[in-house]
Amino acid sequence: MESQYKVGDGVIESGRKEKQVAVANNRKVRGYDLVLRVVAAALSLIAAVVLATDKQTAVVAVTLVPTLPAVNVPVTAKWHDLSTSVYFFVANVIACTYGVISSILTLANRNTNKGVATLIIIFDLVMVALLFSSVGASSALGLMGYEGDSHLQWRKVCNVMGKFCLQGTTALIISGVASSVFFLLVLLEILNLHKKY
Amino acid sequence: MESQYKVGDGVIESGRKEKQVAVANNRKVRGYDLVLRVVAAALSLIAAVVLATDKQTAVVAVTLVPTLPAVNVPVTAKWHDLSTSVYFFVANVIACTYGVISSILTLANRNTNKGVATLIIIFDLVMVALLFSSVGASSALGLMGYEGDSHLQWRKVCNVMGKFCLQGTTALIISGVASSVFFLLVLLEILNLHKKY
Repeated sequence: MESQYKVGDGVIESGRKEKQVAVANNRKVRGYDLVLRVVAAALSLIAAVVLATDKQTAVVAVTLVPTLPAVNVPVTAKWHDLSTSVYFFVANVIACTYGVISSILTLANRNTNKGVATLIIIFDLVMVALLFSSVGASSALGLMGYEGDSHLQWRKVCNVMGKFCLQGTTALIISGVASSVFFLLVLLEILNLHKKY
Repeated sequence: MESQYKVGDGVIESGRKEKQVAVANNRKVRGYDLVLRVVAAALSLIAAVVLATDKQTAVVAVTLVPTLPAVNVPVTAKWHDLSTSVYFFVANVIACTYGVISSILTLANRNTNKGVATLIIIFDLVMVALLFSSVGASSALGLMGYEGDSHLQWRKVCNVMGKFCLQGTTALIISGVASSVFFLLVLLEILNLHKKY
């Protein structure tokens, strides 16, 4: 009987050690997980603000009547003129809000509730899809703004609205990094789960 | 000592049962995992083919000299005129190729090699980012083609190139479903790992 108890205690002791190691690993993971979340939220916020303050007025020569010379007209470009930019803004605001909420949940949860941890990683994945689609959409229109298209007869606008395009591109790059951080979060979580399993 | 062996056998027996259940679960997972991979590969292929056969010639009234009446000119719209469409095509070809390779690897691996399983899920995530960005980019230009933009003076083209736009939209919707299937694959893998852990 004595030897049985010893075996039993050994199993419990071993179990405790494994649990301690697991908890230590989780805490280590939580550390960079939290930093990445805060970075992603901050970058999304900066991208949204940089876009939301994007506005430029330039004087453009407009031909009103073909037989008369062109007239110089002041034209103002605003970020919310394009539905793609509105989508980009909304996507980054959602990503920023989620980044803050998930940081708080990560801190509060500390891996005790498996359901919360699962929900967080699922929404991280949703952010990857949301941000990559908005970055893709804005890149497509940005490229068209810089280069235009002769087939569609869409003229480039960035030669006139240079500051507007540059600020938009800056927002795009910042959001691109934010989406990569969310991608990294999902990637690390997958690697972490695969290592544990 | 006898009782000790009994305890030991019990543990081994229990371990075997758990392993059997785990293997059964894995096989069950492999089933729908494989079906989803084949579906994603097929949809990406269809999307790429539908786009690659997209071409339309329409007669457009073009004003060559402002003082003379417009001249009717046949204009041909081809899918590879736009860099966004080329990106969409390449992304779908990559997704299709990867879908086929990962299906073969999934069949061959049968969850025995953890490294291969990890690589597959990482590349599933890469496909989510790739396809969502290409669908986002093409949606932005598609919307512009249907609606145009008065601020940028980009005229809508889908009122003239109706068949071309419709076929492009069809490819877009099919690729959208393919990207959702890759999203689902990553989601199911995460849920599966969370359940196991």
